[in-house]
Amino acid sequence: MSMFYQDFKLGVLGGGQLGRMLIQSCVNFNVHTSVLDPDSKAPCSGFSNEFQKGSLQDFETVYNFGKQADLVTIEIENVNVDALERLQSEGVPVFPQPEVIRIIQDKRVQKQFYKDNNIPTADFVLINGKEELTNHLDFLPAFQKLGTGGYDGGGVQRLRSEADFDKAFDAPSLLEKLVDFDKEISVIACRNRQGDIAVYPAVELVFHPEYNLVDYLFAPANISEKLEKEAAVIAKDVVEKLGIIGILAVEMFVTKEGEILVNEVAPRPHNSGHQTINANYTSQYEQHLRAILGLPLGSTAMKRPSAMINLLGEEGHTGVAKYEGIEEILKIEGANVFLYGKQVTKPHRKMGHITIIDNDIEALKKKVELVKTAIKVIT
Amino acid sequence: MSMFYQDFKLGVLGGGQLGRMLIQSCVNFNVHTSVLDPDSKAPCSGFSNEFQKGSLQDFETVYNFGKQADLVTIEIENVNVDALERLQSEGVPVFPQPEVIRIIQDKRVQKQFYKDNNIPTADFVLINGKEELTNHLDFLPAFQKLGTGGYDGGGVQRLRSEADFDKAFDAPSLLEKLVDFDKEISVIACRNRQGDIAVYPAVELVFHPEYNLVDYLFAPANISEKLEKEAAVIAKDVVEKLGIIGILAVEMFVTKEGEILVNEVAPRPHNSGHQTINANYTSQYEQHLRAILGLPLGSTAMKRPSAMINLLGEEGHTGVAKYEGIEEILKIEGANVFLYGKQVTKPHRKMGHITIIDNDIEALKKKVELVKTAIKVIT
Repeated sequence: MSMFYQDFKLGVLGGGQLGRMLIQSCVNFNVHTSVLDPDSKAPCSGFSNEFQKGSLQDFETVYNFGKQADLVTIEIENVNVDALERLQSEGVPVFPQPEVIRIIQDKRVQKQFYKDNNIPTADFVLINGKEELTNHLDFLPAFQKLGTGGYDGGGVQRLRSEADFDKAFDAPSLLEKLVDFDKEISVIACRNRQGDIAVYPAVELVFHPEYNLVDYLFAPANISEKLEKEAAVIAKDVVEKLGIIGILAVEMFVTKEGEILVNEVAPRPHNSGHQTINANYTSQYEQHLRAILGLPLGSTAMKRPSAMINLLGEEGHTGVAKYEGIEEILKIEGANVFLYGKQVTKPHRKMGHITIIDNDIEALKKKVELVKTAIKVIT
Repeated sequence: MSMFYQDFKLGVLGGGQLGRMLIQSCVNFNVHTSVLDPDSKAPCSGFSNEFQKGSLQDFETVYNFGKQADLVTIEIENVNVDALERLQSEGVPVFPQPEVIRIIQDKRVQKQFYKDNNIPTADFVLINGKEELTNHLDFLPAFQKLGTGGYDGGGVQRLRSEADFDKAFDAPSLLEKLVDFDKEISVIACRNRQGDIAVYPAVELVFHPEYNLVDYLFAPANISEKLEKEAAVIAKDVVEKLGIIGILAVEMFVTKEGEILVNEVAPRPHNSGHQTINANYTSQYEQHLRAILGLPLGSTAMKRPSAMINLLGEEGHTGVAKYEGIEEILKIEGANVFLYGKQVTKPHRKMGHITIIDNDIEALKKKVELVKTAIKVIT
């Protein structure tokens, strides 16, 4: 095995911020990185060893890119899986495995997978288009979720009653019963090539009231020890049943009755794991790398409680980004700033994040409010 | 100010491991990096935004390199200071300042600086060559240190008696009284453009019995609270008297009488601060960047006690490096591996380091022993 010798080339599909932070870990392992992204100015450009501009959905592009690598991974799941399957069949290791990406890529298939495998999840029905909605009036209020194509809060529509049907998607989708949940949590788990599994402590997600995006999170989640254990068991169960190699982020609802339901999963480092860079013994990025390289997994223990605030592009601003208030943020004890190197800001675009470390959760929440009022990404 | 907008270019003189870890911090601030190093395969090559092969000692090379940057810094002090002074006089900010580098670059000038500024340090005399040694027999046993040209344990010779004079350097040097010290510690301090100073907790250095290189260190140092405070006051004093902007690593002796003496300083991120990446609120690399960019300094508080072990090239091995035992290391709870991307290993060459985090210093020391027996860099 040529790992650690600098001639081991990791091909990464996608050159966004997740890839960017993955590369920072690759550097520590002497792993040579090669990135494919449609945007020549993507966050990974300029500091991956190699960078190729090209479509992640095009069979030939992905196949030819992967053929040059010793190992292929993803930082976004919307990629050409046929090409990955071909690579796999020709002996190029692809982790997470194409068959896992295929299940997760389509929310309909993903949801059916939970049902078939007795993984607790909100009730749902699959529909092929708008016209079928009237067959499921008893399911309302519900979320309609597109099978494919949704990303960062897109592809989801809340349908309270028939009156909302004009906003509904006319495409293969699923109708999911609205869960009266108490909180949303995320558990990041990881499985390496040897089959070992490591699970991070649950984090609590606080969503933006309007954008359907995580506004901030804190760790550990404010849940009972019993729920914490249950969440870990469920995350481990999903990982095992998928058989995934690599990181799996499992987003869950905690219902008002104290039940845990899996919402959705992502087969890659995830927004809800950024804080592990500063707050945990092993970052999710290094953990993913350890897993796919077949190395022992690292400890997931927390060094300190933490919060992570997404730095979203301000409403009404599209153009070359300016960051207002960063100096104020850097004055906050325990705050670290991560900018993603995106030149252009757009409303709600993820432009960076802030991690805060503190021993006290209440102090953390106060610092979160401070950060949120201090910083703005404008043009 | 164009910082954070990706068009701000930091020129870094030197492309070694310190630059490599500095770049990992630059990425988080969207700072564009340009690196100069004589070795086209230096650790920074391949993932700095720009990389130029060239001499760090040549006036024209350094000057022309710096002219292209918005700010110039160093990761090694053996650079052409005349060029830096010219750049500074032409309005290019250079931090640490050329006049500070000049003092530190020559150990004779550095030592005289301590004396002139009432900074406690071991007794010494300056000599111009070997022939002057006989005038200072009463100074023996002593260390003879070359004024310039020493690096990584080189340029230092122990002279016990006249019998050792055949090993002595025949060059401008200093003769330093052997200090009967109890331990060696290092305190990293940092001063930003606004004049704010932050000081890291002292770390304790354990030297290799033969190579005159740090074998490993642990933090916090096992010293009394009183000594810890004194060490911090001295480090701050040196920083203020030098007027440095950026990181200053201050290596000190703690004598058996409980006195602190400054051994030497480095005006840049330092080997004795690697563990701050994992163990402190703000890494020394981010701190240096904050300081030279004129940003607020971060907290230096520890998240956890830590140890750092240098990964040195094995004796008798010169050639393309192989890393033996990394998988064993990764099994140790709290261990993180940093490889420097050097293709060729040589005896005692710094090829990487391992950081270990643990709550218990005794457990840390056991893990250090485990690491030291498990890992080898061979060919």
